[in-house]
Amino acid sequence: MIPTETIEQLADQLARFEREELEADALCDDLAAVRDQDIARAMKELSIEGMARLLGILPDERRAGVFGFLEPETQYVLVETLDEAIAREVLEGQRPDNLTALLEHIGTEEGESVVRLLSPHRVQQALRLLGYPPESAGRLMTPEFISLHPGWTLARALEYVQQHAGRSETIDTLYVTDARGRLLGWTGLRKLVLGAPGATVESLMDSEPVHAMVGDDREEVARQIQHYDLTALPVVDEAGVLLGMVTIDDVMDVVEEEATEDIHKLGGLGAKQVSLRGASILDLFKKRIGWLLMLVFLAIFAAGAVSAFEETLEAAVVLSFFLPLIIGSGGNAGSQGATMMVRALATGDVSSGDWARLWGRELGVATALGVTMGAAAWGIGLFYGGTMLANVVFVSMIAVVVFGSMVGMLLPFLLTRLKLDPATASTPLITSIADIGGILIYFGIASAWISATPSV
Amino acid sequence: MIPTETIEQLADQLARFEREELEADALCDDLAAVRDQDIARAMKELSIEGMARLLGILPDERRAGVFGFLEPETQYVLVETLDEAIAREVLEGQRPDNLTALLEHIGTEEGESVVRLLSPHRVQQALRLLGYPPESAGRLMTPEFISLHPGWTLARALEYVQQHAGRSETIDTLYVTDARGRLLGWTGLRKLVLGAPGATVESLMDSEPVHAMVGDDREEVARQIQHYDLTALPVVDEAGVLLGMVTIDDVMDVVEEEATEDIHKLGGLGAKQVSLRGASILDLFKKRIGWLLMLVFLAIFAAGAVSAFEETLEAAVVLSFFLPLIIGSGGNAGSQGATMMVRALATGDVSSGDWARLWGRELGVATALGVTMGAAAWGIGLFYGGTMLANVVFVSMIAVVVFGSMVGMLLPFLLTRLKLDPATASTPLITSIADIGGILIYFGIASAWISATPSV
Repeated sequence: MIPTETIEQLADQLARFEREELEADALCDDLAAVRDQDIARAMKELSIEGMARLLGILPDERRAGVFGFLEPETQYVLVETLDEAIAREVLEGQRPDNLTALLEHIGTEEGESVVRLLSPHRVQQALRLLGYPPESAGRLMTPEFISLHPGWTLARALEYVQQHAGRSETIDTLYVTDARGRLLGWTGLRKLVLGAPGATVESLMDSEPVHAMVGDDREEVARQIQHYDLTALPVVDEAGVLLGMVTIDDVMDVVEEEATEDIHKLGGLGAKQVSLRGASILDLFKKRIGWLLMLVFLAIFAAGAVSAFEETLEAAVVLSFFLPLIIGSGGNAGSQGATMMVRALATGDVSSGDWARLWGRELGVATALGVTMGAAAWGIGLFYGGTMLANVVFVSMIAVVVFGSMVGMLLPFLLTRLKLDPATASTPLITSIADIGGILIYFGIASAWISATPSV
Repeated sequence: MIPTETIEQLADQLARFEREELEADALCDDLAAVRDQDIARAMKELSIEGMARLLGILPDERRAGVFGFLEPETQYVLVETLDEAIAREVLEGQRPDNLTALLEHIGTEEGESVVRLLSPHRVQQALRLLGYPPESAGRLMTPEFISLHPGWTLARALEYVQQHAGRSETIDTLYVTDARGRLLGWTGLRKLVLGAPGATVESLMDSEPVHAMVGDDREEVARQIQHYDLTALPVVDEAGVLLGMVTIDDVMDVVEEEATEDIHKLGGLGAKQVSLRGASILDLFKKRIGWLLMLVFLAIFAAGAVSAFEETLEAAVVLSFFLPLIIGSGGNAGSQGATMMVRALATGDVSSGDWARLWGRELGVATALGVTMGAAAWGIGLFYGGTMLANVVFVSMIAVVVFGSMVGMLLPFLLTRLKLDPATASTPLITSIADIGGILIYFGIASAWISATPSV
């Protein structure tokens, strides 16, 4: 378990420190046993000034660590608030990929206040990483890795690793490159330790390493690391030159963020990532209003569809009792279909070429669902309005459920074909389309039935 | 990128091998350069007999590897089909956590055919792991790890690791235990390599290691590994005795599976994990019909709500034109709220104690959304039915959007309080509740307005 209680207790202590009810020394003693991640989590409730004061009293060697686990938006404001010397030290202590995330988050202009605190080397490094497309492997990777020569003996390689370990985020994975820096293979510290000291690096390396291109999408990178059970993935340029490595802990966050993005899109929310905890009313309004307004305008067609059947409705108001049931069922079945399809496309369980086979099966499933639900609805129809209404409800239910399921299943595929994100087929969108179709189907069937029989 | 093309080409080759158009020797040569994961992926389209023949022609040392990447359901059928000697060898070569996953998947009775092929040691190990609750750390962990004595020098420890490396899934992470096997700390191969050979293990270990209890939920384990950026987490029993370790690659799959589970629940689908690719019509029917029927019965109340306003409707059929718009908008706003809340609860962005603060904010957001949408709908109302209808639609829209949002936001919290999964607050459920509430609100406002004014 993440120690939620510990973090809450700690947050209390930090609040007391902020209100000056707790001495800095006493707090520092308590913090010695707490991990950086937990301090960063507990700090969230403090004011920016409180955070700056807290970082100020931490031992020098811990500041950069704690700072690294804060959100980029907090990091940015903190840099502006901190004592310049401390800010410089904290920024210099960040891993390159953390620094990229911070600079990526703040705009170019605001970025200046951060950049002027960095050493020229770090600035150059950050600018290079920011040159890669957003959400690419280049943005995710760290350019710090250890590369070995293929001709070295393991003893020589081990010595080199011992001397240069500080230059890499991890030394569990090591790369092998040629004189031009092109990736030849990879090996691990364990192989160096377990192999015969006189053997060459070349003889032990995996010579066809799985790798990503620097412009590859980060979702692809995550999928590759998952598929091949890797802990790190090398990133190369067009010429095969090794530029950096993506480590699995960064990828875990990507998997979670991408899932959140899909879930939000499916729920009819804007794609912009917003922490629900910290979001303002305006942030949330902006994230939600776009889709809602679009759906309101889509509903004009629903109103039009109902109004087209005004006469039918006047002749039998009882039909309107079942409108919510019929259109709701189409929307529900469609939402289910879209949800399964979007997730299966995202995890690679199915691919866009599978649509025809899946379409046939969905037709079978939807018919079975429609008949079962229609039978249940038939009983309700009988209770409210007699056999004829029950029959209309039964037939409409089947047609509407099949229609909704087809829309729900095919729309994600269509979006994929159009190079759009299938998750745009959100459940509210499917529901709204199913509403319009459902109204036309239901009233269409009802008015045909009514005109075919003498009286209701 | 996962080499989709390579896998498709390979699948073609395998199909040709199955149809006996390709010689076993020629195929074997081609497979030498292909990774186990890719062979397993490409095999999916073969018949079970085809898979068994393919495993038969693979070099001995690769069979267990390829087999390990197949789905448990395929593994089980394969064991029954394979030559007994090969089946025995393949099972014996599985990692303990893979074997647990296989036995977990098949029932106790069917499991016998697997168990009788295993060596007594493996059976005992598997039974112990299966004794832990489903979805617990115990089911996820591998019981194979290397533990060091705290008093050893690094040189002695390194020697021990070299001798026993084969006994552990990874040697990048090493544990330190006392004479009774209780976890004292952890260290890494890198520390042994980088430290002074004469230093003791104790002096280098992290002595307050993050750890999980064997009964902890696997989602908690995943969250902990993510929070502390670990690559492996030790699992202990009540007495602190080290039982095994969970590695990050297993946890990646958990994160993805849990996200899929939440997405499916939010879409109103049963929680049972079904691969969309391989599912039968009956599987899919069962996964979907439960919720759909429940929602049909919920819709009885919607029908009842409309019927209660029969007279109002007869007096002004035009009101029914806007029924889909009004109830749909409440459902959409509610779906958004529920989606954000469920995901934020799942990722730990908010906790159940935050409800009051979030409720106030949601009220503000929903009012703003309702007023904006109401203004848009007012225009549509004016077009179809004049000022009075437009006003009724405007006021109803605000009320319905606020109602839907409140339901969407509070239901996940309520479910959490009742120790139920918040994701049960699926978008179809929210939509159905919003339907009933929306009908009562809309017709309620309309009939009050109508009775307060002389004529429509």
